[in-house]
Amino acid sequence: MSEQKIYKWFLDALSPHEAHAHGIDNMVYSKQTRYQRLEIIDTASYGRCLVLDGKMQSSEVDEFIYHEALVHPALLTHPNPKKVFIVGGGEGATLREILYHTSVTKVLMVDIDEEVVSLCKDHLPQWSKGAFDDPRTELAHLDARRYLEETNETYDIIIIDISEPVEEGPAYLLYTREFYSLVMERLTPDGIISLQAGTTSANNLLNFTAVLKTLRQVFPIVLGYHASIPSFGLPWGFALASKRYDPRELTIKEVDHRIAQRISAELKYYDGEIHQGQFVLPKMVRQAMDKQERVIEDNAPLFTYN
Amino acid sequence: MSEQKIYKWFLDALSPHEAHAHGIDNMVYSKQTRYQRLEIIDTASYGRCLVLDGKMQSSEVDEFIYHEALVHPALLTHPNPKKVFIVGGGEGATLREILYHTSVTKVLMVDIDEEVVSLCKDHLPQWSKGAFDDPRTELAHLDARRYLEETNETYDIIIIDISEPVEEGPAYLLYTREFYSLVMERLTPDGIISLQAGTTSANNLLNFTAVLKTLRQVFPIVLGYHASIPSFGLPWGFALASKRYDPRELTIKEVDHRIAQRISAELKYYDGEIHQGQFVLPKMVRQAMDKQERVIEDNAPLFTYN
Amino acid sequence: MSEQKIYKWFLDALSPHEAHAHGIDNMVYSKQTRYQRLEIIDTASYGRCLVLDGKMQSSEVDEFIYHEALVHPALLTHPNPKKVFIVGGGEGATLREILYHTSVTKVLMVDIDEEVVSLCKDHLPQWSKGAFDDPRTELAHLDARRYLEETNETYDIIIIDISEPVEEGPAYLLYTREFYSLVMERLTPDGIISLQAGTTSANNLLNFTAVLKTLRQVFPIVLGYHASIPSFGLPWGFALASKRYDPRELTIKEVDHRIAQRISAELKYYDGEIHQGQFVLPKMVRQAMDKQERVIEDNAPLFTYN
Amino acid sequence: MSEQKIYKWFLDALSPHEAHAHGIDNMVYSKQTRYQRLEIIDTASYGRCLVLDGKMQSSEVDEFIYHEALVHPALLTHPNPKKVFIVGGGEGATLREILYHTSVTKVLMVDIDEEVVSLCKDHLPQWSKGAFDDPRTELAHLDARRYLEETNETYDIIIIDISEPVEEGPAYLLYTREFYSLVMERLTPDGIISLQAGTTSANNLLNFTAVLKTLRQVFPIVLGYHASIPSFGLPWGFALASKRYDPRELTIKEVDHRIAQRISAELKYYDGEIHQGQFVLPKMVRQAMDKQERVIEDNAPLFTYN
Repeated sequence: MSEQKIYKWFLDALSPHEAHAHGIDNMVYSKQTRYQRLEIIDTASYGRCLVLDGKMQSSEVDEFIYHEALVHPALLTHPNPKKVFIVGGGEGATLREILYHTSVTKVLMVDIDEEVVSLCKDHLPQWSKGAFDDPRTELAHLDARRYLEETNETYDIIIIDISEPVEEGPAYLLYTREFYSLVMERLTPDGIISLQAGTTSANNLLNFTAVLKTLRQVFPIVLGYHASIPSFGLPWGFALASKRYDPRELTIKEVDHRIAQRISAELKYYDGEIHQGQFVLPKMVRQAMDKQERVIEDNAPLFTYN
Repeated sequence: MSEQKIYKWFLDALSPHEAHAHGIDNMVYSKQTRYQRLEIIDTASYGRCLVLDGKMQSSEVDEFIYHEALVHPALLTHPNPKKVFIVGGGEGATLREILYHTSVTKVLMVDIDEEVVSLCKDHLPQWSKGAFDDPRTELAHLDARRYLEETNETYDIIIIDISEPVEEGPAYLLYTREFYSLVMERLTPDGIISLQAGTTSANNLLNFTAVLKTLRQVFPIVLGYHASIPSFGLPWGFALASKRYDPRELTIKEVDHRIAQRISAELKYYDGEIHQGQFVLPKMVRQAMDKQERVIEDNAPLFTYN
Repeated sequence: MSEQKIYKWFLDALSPHEAHAHGIDNMVYSKQTRYQRLEIIDTASYGRCLVLDGKMQSSEVDEFIYHEALVHPALLTHPNPKKVFIVGGGEGATLREILYHTSVTKVLMVDIDEEVVSLCKDHLPQWSKGAFDDPRTELAHLDARRYLEETNETYDIIIIDISEPVEEGPAYLLYTREFYSLVMERLTPDGIISLQAGTTSANNLLNFTAVLKTLRQVFPIVLGYHASIPSFGLPWGFALASKRYDPRELTIKEVDHRIAQRISAELKYYDGEIHQGQFVLPKMVRQAMDKQERVIEDNAPLFTYN
Repeated sequence: MSEQKIYKWFLDALSPHEAHAHGIDNMVYSKQTRYQRLEIIDTASYGRCLVLDGKMQSSEVDEFIYHEALVHPALLTHPNPKKVFIVGGGEGATLREILYHTSVTKVLMVDIDEEVVSLCKDHLPQWSKGAFDDPRTELAHLDARRYLEETNETYDIIIIDISEPVEEGPAYLLYTREFYSLVMERLTPDGIISLQAGTTSANNLLNFTAVLKTLRQVFPIVLGYHASIPSFGLPWGFALASKRYDPRELTIKEVDHRIAQRISAELKYYDGEIHQGQFVLPKMVRQAMDKQERVIEDNAPLFTYN
């Protein structure tokens, strides 16, 4: 397929002076939605990729790492997750991983961009694998923050699967102390949340450490963890915040047992070993976390790529 | 420094259709040595960088991750490492980390390219931090394989710090079963080796898994481990092979204790937690390792970027 | 349209160490035909572009320069061109310009790649502007050289509109002394040919000067000329070879008169002034032409990008 | 030299969505002067190049085209040029070409950036070829506009050799009607000026046509002309403005005669034929010139790359 020389490139800007360059085999689809520019690109190294506003979101080859790492720590730590809320989650792969949990009876996914969800359903069916048609799935195209403000419902798990906070985009108000407080209120007493939290690259730790610091203003148990998603071009961080349960208290064996008992699919990335190993962050990352004092607030938001 | 627009770029080709692009602030030095093309570049994201034959070798900002991850697992696992042999190690940073171990009485570094070593000493003094002047250091500019064939000396630790095996380069004969057998013979009974083993990227596991398979033909204890070195653009793998001691048997506490007792510097990346966490590889990497049957031999070498 | 930041780029390699980079707005179409890779790309600077095997062929914004410069010098120099043969000519824009000449009664276009012609007709209708439906047009998808060998027909004008001679492609046998001799035989006594002849860039004159030298082995009147087609990234050369008429003998006024009399459309690039001016080549180009001794032959072909 | 793969690139941005990419062999020198960022780069295609603020200024391979085209039309049109003023001219190559004219008795070059001039003298001696040491040369490092405002001297020829007008740079006030009026006043009655006037690319004619329109507010005879300088990546325009003499009235023969009589060096690009041919602009360029109504003024300046 890619034996010919590559002459079209997708440059994923990681900063104004760093980029990961993907050779393009084929451009599949391109559209300006109401909220963002969506593109589906076949790359030579990572197969089909979803690109929003010029940033790689997920690739056919390694999206499983991102989505398993985002979803399973929270759900496996919870004793019996039934009701799950997804903030964002466009591709439907977060939904897919949640639905593998047989305990789950209802998932509400609230993604403001109906077109992105619909185009992903059509053009990236290998991401959602039918999850949108599962009877447990409910889908709404609203502002997730406003939805949570107005609802009285509570959830066992809330997964925040949104792109990074940029000045032009709407996502930045989903990274603040006020939003996390709202999320906290909408959780059941055993509730747990997880989210992607930006790169853990040694020279670029502001976003990751500030998100964790902000979560700590709200939640009693807050953990950073990381995974390598090669198509992202940089090491990547996640956060888990919990009202009662600490994921590190589960043994490898217990996690593997829960996976066997509760998950209806064969995982490719996640298991008990990774569950333990992922919470081990490099010493300099932990030190940067300890030193970080920045709390992200509605009136003092944080933007990446500035 | 880098507020101006970047218009000179260093493209680190990870494959014919993937690259990591580094904005260049300044070109510091450039030279064709007898063996390779050396360049020292100031990049906007990673500061000063060493580039050999167009491939990023190490950067001011994150070389500590690479060198701590390469050196300390082996030396901390050994009960009392005294004599150490370095295959390659041009920048002198591997030497630096070894010399931090107070037990070490002698380090022999054999790097075939005298010019690279000398230029790194002059232009990258923050890498070697005086290590070349340490009385325990001995430096030779020879073919390391031939040296090991001809010597009768044995070593407690052998660290292999060389670039990747490419068709044109001399390094590929330092990745074969025959070479590892030779290394085994030159170890003391408690001997341990470590080496960098290429990317652990999900779609590019051949090199990493074949190196581990090959080591397993020779050593009773062989472990893969990984670290994220952002300037490399992809997740990175290492291997540790040992005659007697298994690094995973050390508790976090014991590793931290050994660091406190034996290491004269403040480490930035490594500690007991990372010692444990780094051996946890993603499930799909472990599965690829289990399935790999390729043994690298002098007559059946492996080349990257083919 | 292109106010957003560009993150997809088409790199048109002019040599292994020089390229012209076009920001991509949209990928319109992509296909591997039997003979070449065709792509239709919307670029930010040049609008819709046809790309074959990774090389820019023509752009919406400036294809008129290329096609007017290729076609009109020959046809306007001829006293009464009726029958025209096109070697290649995929997009149909060469055909379009020829058909603007009201004297023309028949044009036979022989392009080996039926798919390219058909896809251009569908996706680039602004190039051919209905020319394929003109009753004077005849289209054949054969090897043009073989066709000319087997036919007894003769033509007043032969326009050679093919891509550059590369090692893998079939075009290189359409650049040799043997082929030009065949073309000569298939011309009527007043016959004239023209062709694109590669860049006239100061450091890369081999192709242009060798094509002219080769034509001089066959034709009594041979002229090089040039035009600036910005999307090509380099200055571009053409050649006109003639049995009897010398284009430079036409005054500006006479050319403008012929345009007014014979051409049914408003030209955008060409007129009497350009007709004269285009034959004036820089001194160093003329000197390189004088010194060039290389004759391109079937057994000694010339390839670009080597 | 450049047989190895190129992995460092200089991207000369022609617009936010178009660039010419030059493979870098070697970075020779880099310095932030008081006014601009200077870099000297060895490229694989064009040899040594001068880059100011990220824009290609001139290359070893083809600077002769630019400098011959800038200087000789004005000096050869003048009956007996003695005193010449250069606005800018950093590299010293404009000075070099002027000094080849044996009639010239004095050249005053006023370039505000002393460091650029000095660094070019040291690092690009093949550009100035000793011109700075010619006894006819006078060099001043001042604001050329202010200098012309304050002097009473007049000149036979004024050559404006400055970079393009960008918002941050000081050059934009050297492109206005007010400046050209001042230049007019400082010319002797037979006086002629010439300048580079930006690209003549079909889709980017604003700068070129507005400069010509502005000159026409001041000078009775104003001509645009063009040359292909491959390293610039786009076709390039110049302007000549004159009080009395029209360059087109010189025959090819007369120009060649003047060159033989007056110029002490062998020209590589320029001769009588080019003198005539260069004034022939494509029809669409002439039409755009006719339609242009924009006059550049101090209070209504024009910036490129906006």
